Amino acid sequence: MLILSKQQILDKFDADAITLLLKEGFIAYSQQQVQMPPVQHLLFGQANGDCCIKSGYLQGDSQFVVKVSGGFYDNPAQGLSSNQGLMMAFSALTGEPQAILLDEGWLTALRTALAGRIAAELCAPKHINAIGIIGTGMQARLHLMYLKSVVACRQLWVWGRSETALEEFRQYAENEGFEVNTTLNAAELARHCQVIITTTPSREPILQAVDIQPGTHITAVGADGVGKHELSPELIAKADKILLDSWAQCTEFGEISQAFQQGLLTAHTLTEIGSVLAQGISFRENDQQITLADLTGLGIQDVQIVKGILA
Amino acid sequence: MLILSKQQILDKFDADAITLLLKEGFIAYSQQQVQMPPVQHLLFGQANGDCCIKSGYLQGDSQFVVKVSGGFYDNPAQGLSSNQGLMMAFSALTGEPQAILLDEGWLTALRTALAGRIAAELCAPKHINAIGIIGTGMQARLHLMYLKSVVACRQLWVWGRSETALEEFRQYAENEGFEVNTTLNAAELARHCQVIITTTPSREPILQAVDIQPGTHITAVGADGVGKHELSPELIAKADKILLDSWAQCTEFGEISQAFQQGLLTAHTLTEIGSVLAQGISFRENDQQITLADLTGLGIQDVQIVKGILA
Repeated sequence: MLILSKQQILDKFDADAITLLLKEGFIAYSQQQVQMPPVQHLLFGQANGDCCIKSGYLQGDSQFVVKVSGGFYDNPAQGLSSNQGLMMAFSALTGEPQAILLDEGWLTALRTALAGRIAAELCAPKHINAIGIIGTGMQARLHLMYLKSVVACRQLWVWGRSETALEEFRQYAENEGFEVNTTLNAAELARHCQVIITTTPSREPILQAVDIQPGTHITAVGADGVGKHELSPELIAKADKILLDSWAQCTEFGEISQAFQQGLLTAHTLTEIGSVLAQGISFRENDQQITLADLTGLGIQDVQIVKGILA
Repeated sequence: MLILSKQQILDKFDADAITLLLKEGFIAYSQQQVQMPPVQHLLFGQANGDCCIKSGYLQGDSQFVVKVSGGFYDNPAQGLSSNQGLMMAFSALTGEPQAILLDEGWLTALRTALAGRIAAELCAPKHINAIGIIGTGMQARLHLMYLKSVVACRQLWVWGRSETALEEFRQYAENEGFEVNTTLNAAELARHCQVIITTTPSREPILQAVDIQPGTHITAVGADGVGKHELSPELIAKADKILLDSWAQCTEFGEISQAFQQGLLTAHTLTEIGSVLAQGISFRENDQQITLADLTGLGIQDVQIVKGILA
């Protein structure tokens, strides 16, 4: 059995090759060629942590993947990453364990950021005065890094809860070639930005319907469990077009789940990324629409990124 | 991170200490102190294999457990065990992986057999002329081994589908100190036995209501997924008292599920092992009752056996 350390995994990581695998995975998922049981969730209230367990199998593959992915939000105070976990590959022919990837959550972070890049490719408007990033953590950084290859704009607004975190993020983003504005006021960010990525584990809406201008695209990646929300239900209902990684997951516990369950989305078409990719067209139809992409994270993304690392 | 091989795991296995942990686990489960998300199932039709993923957390513990457990039924022809898989422990404080137990399915087999011993302690009648084992596989052997410490009787009847398997089982059981009768006729076994353990993956009933005498206890461990059944629904309805590891799992896909869903158990009380253990009393009330224990296997058992191995 192969055991790969985080560094060995990162050495094998090829963002473009894996992006192609992820696109194939989204398409296969939307074509019902993927076994992906419902996500298991565990909560650790006292430790301010949670864990999700995802598994997936693409029909015909010689391996399947199981992932354990934790978020322990008090870890940074102890000098540990808040993202934790590992991925495993097993033979689909004999069930034997083949590889353990001790990625410390990096592969989840990377495949999420690459899914964000795919969503931006499908949804971003032509005119972008500034990119907005809600949150200052690892997801915020990775999304920004991978957006660079699909969005030419280098004006950036960043929202965070602490000046210290914002200043650290400013240094990171300036090194990535951005002109950076920081704010503690998310509405101010939204006034300037046409592409907004929300990356926090918030349980209260950070952006309201009134904050968002026509011609904006929002990718929401923070909501991956019941109760997590970064956008108000009214903002979600205001979107002209809504893109989902998974109808089943997003309506159950994604960013749109609350609005969906409140009956605010009955007039909306909820479209899966895999369906749009299979058609080979852009999701956005004009530069006035408000588009929203809800990314809850799919087991098939884990299957595909592990495939890319072990290739 | 600790990585334990199967041999290292077996060296650390203490059946009595782990039985106490399992009892604590059943009690905690019935008292709603356990997080145990629904089991994930994957199917590999071409390989004649399946895989289930279980996770669990006992409130207040410093670790949680994830198990990947495969059954690949064509493996023996390649010289591989049909049971595959591993268990993992993670910190419930930081999410970090702590240990990977490469047990190749042994811990699942062992905790199942120990649960059978607990059920026998609670249900077996005083007068036992013979023990009956339905099936000749690993579960049959482990159940018999652990029954020895709670049932003094050393007369044994074994049912199997092949004379070869029965003869192999006879040798095993004689080495364990039993006087062994083999049969291809399950009804004949039932006529002689007051404690019967059913351990097969059968999808057709092997025992019928008419086969069972008053004063018999049956532990059914084979049914761990929809469609698996070793006892006829009428036999289940004939039981005076029914013990379950989990009301939710047993009524959904356990041995009793078909009888339950057919409405045959409306007059029965379905009692969880944890509730009986918490009261500290025997489940059986007299030597004339027919008792049945339905064991589907719980994630909390995995939590507790890993705790015992890592202690």
